[in-house]
Amino acid sequence: MPRVHIDVMPKDEILDPQGQAIERALPQLGFAGVRSVRVGKHFELDVDDTADLEERVRAMADSLLANSVIERFRYHVEP
Amino acid sequence: MPRVHIDVMPKDEILDPQGQAIERALPQLGFAGVRSVRVGKHFELDVDDTADLEERVRAMADSLLANSVIERFRYHVEP
Repeated sequence: MPRVHIDVMPKDEILDPQGQAIERALPQLGFAGVRSVRVGKHFELDVDDTADLEERVRAMADSLLANSVIERFRYHVEP
Repeated sequence: MPRVHIDVMPKDEILDPQGQAIERALPQLGFAGVRSVRVGKHFELDVDDTADLEERVRAMADSLLANSVIERFRYHVEP
């Protein structure tokens, strides 16, 4: 069964306090060299078939999974 | 600057009420054929260099990003 992976991330111009908190915590935990951290959501959907999949995934993301005002999404299909 | 993508997902045996809610909402919104939905987190880290990157990413995920009792993680590096 094909699995669709969808990442929903805050747009670049949107403040991401959770990412900033991780960014600040990392050096204190001994991890240097991380410049920027952004946090979003990851969805894994098992789908029956791949007919019109691109169109269906975009519609699902637009209507339910992502808030297009503040978030962008990308996806890929694992066959 | 290389970007590390880390997905943190609930383990298969862990209940995922958010995923179940989406699974139930999709048919009502007209999307058929989605069998299973799991929801997790997606992290994007911009890193200075790729020295020991695999080791560092695993350590970061173990100590800060994922709760290994209930979550698993996977990652890939975008050069």
